[in-house]
Amino acid sequence: MQVEPSAETASEARSSARSRLLARYRDAAFANSVAAPQWNAVLDTMLAHRSVRAYRKTPLPPGSLEAIVAAAQSAPTSSNLQAWSVVAVQDPARKARLSQLAAGQRHVAEAPLLLVFLADLARLGQIACERGQNAEGINYLEAFVVAVADAALAAQNALIAAESLGLGGCYIGALRNHPQEVAEELALPDAVFAAFGLTIGYPDPTVATSVKPRLPQAVVLHHEQYQRAASSALANYDGCLRSFWAEQKMSDIDWTEHVAACVQNREALMGRDALRAILQARGFGLR
Amino acid sequence: MQVEPSAETASEARSSARSRLLARYRDAAFANSVAAPQWNAVLDTMLAHRSVRAYRKTPLPPGSLEAIVAAAQSAPTSSNLQAWSVVAVQDPARKARLSQLAAGQRHVAEAPLLLVFLADLARLGQIACERGQNAEGINYLEAFVVAVADAALAAQNALIAAESLGLGGCYIGALRNHPQEVAEELALPDAVFAAFGLTIGYPDPTVATSVKPRLPQAVVLHHEQYQRAASSALANYDGCLRSFWAEQKMSDIDWTEHVAACVQNREALMGRDALRAILQARGFGLR
Repeated sequence: MQVEPSAETASEARSSARSRLLARYRDAAFANSVAAPQWNAVLDTMLAHRSVRAYRKTPLPPGSLEAIVAAAQSAPTSSNLQAWSVVAVQDPARKARLSQLAAGQRHVAEAPLLLVFLADLARLGQIACERGQNAEGINYLEAFVVAVADAALAAQNALIAAESLGLGGCYIGALRNHPQEVAEELALPDAVFAAFGLTIGYPDPTVATSVKPRLPQAVVLHHEQYQRAASSALANYDGCLRSFWAEQKMSDIDWTEHVAACVQNREALMGRDALRAILQARGFGLR
Repeated sequence: MQVEPSAETASEARSSARSRLLARYRDAAFANSVAAPQWNAVLDTMLAHRSVRAYRKTPLPPGSLEAIVAAAQSAPTSSNLQAWSVVAVQDPARKARLSQLAAGQRHVAEAPLLLVFLADLARLGQIACERGQNAEGINYLEAFVVAVADAALAAQNALIAAESLGLGGCYIGALRNHPQEVAEELALPDAVFAAFGLTIGYPDPTVATSVKPRLPQAVVLHHEQYQRAASSALANYDGCLRSFWAEQKMSDIDWTEHVAACVQNREALMGRDALRAILQARGFGLR
């Protein structure tokens, strides 16, 4: 559905687009080079995304959970299989336990709402079973890919919906640190996997958040065929993030050093090296 | 970023929300029950989604690919690893070949733009290698989950961005029917996987599209803990989709029959039962 341009004039639209692109890429030449066709509130919302990890205690207004889930369900799903589910966790004790399982991240306990997105092959299996049929297909890696992708497509719509309502959010991949314990906490049946969480609430206005710069488009966007990233482009991005951290008055290691540390070895996976074995024990064939 | 309400009055907002929810769920009681807090252009765009498979030949306006990719890169990414890439395919001959690999779907050849979203662990491996470090972590299923989820989060932002510009799109999971051939066509290195495609273009106005109803929220949204779906709710959804297909003057099997057929056996996977073996041969450890 085409959205009305958000600006009164073409020059205002260009100006909005440029400031958003500049915040995202910190590359004035690139931001100035992009024509801004019909810049609108949808593009503006997505470009303005920043992760929120500190929330006000204010509960969500009535109807917002339903609107957020309706947006999530409006995302495409492979062959309309709808191989995902979501658990809305609002009970403080349960959020606190899930926070502990997710590397102790405080915002998991503090956010008024934690959505846990599930790759759900159990419902497909149930449907086959109720029809007296086999569900051999769910034992393949393909089915797992479908379910994880379905859950992620839905979750991203949920996040954008929440942000459009003035709420903020942050994905919680650390729920994969302890997949078995998370499954028990949420009473997940076999063939259902908590892929990640999403905390949602009103951002605490006393805690600054900011748009994190991303890799240059030239690194991520390939034309016709894949091109290996230029080392110089990766080094430039290190410099870009270094400025960003300095502005935040935070120090962090270089991005390339961070990436290398994350993938260096089994220990860096924070227990997630066991993911395959745990999933296989929990009804995912992954063949 | 909170978006201005799209309607002048609260009653207009409720009316917009209700008509979108009614189209998505075909359940008047549910649509009427949802308070519509600050209904806005972002929610409206997401709820209005329909898949587009017939396109005008009109090319995309200048700057739209860059705006779409900027939206995609603005999606969250696990630990800022940015473990995804996208190939923009516009060459007619390449689109035609990819169409053949994707079960002959004509819109893959006919859309002016095909985006192929890649789960990309190669860039992480390259960074580690250039630093003289091991990248043992990318051999685990966890890394594959991160990359597929990153690609899907980015892709969904891309789709919503395109729709906000008056374009339409359709995901192409069938690129997984022939992962090896697709990888060769796109010159993908080891540890890069074409997770799915996304066709983009202006919808052909002579071909009707419609909002596909989804499962009731009560089936997909769980509170605090997972609840097995009520068989009656699944049967009701069969009835809902039956009405939808009748309106479209198309006949289709019941949804539960479709689901059961999709997961019945290895043959139903259209060659995707080989996905794991092909990925393992192409540098994904999946341990």
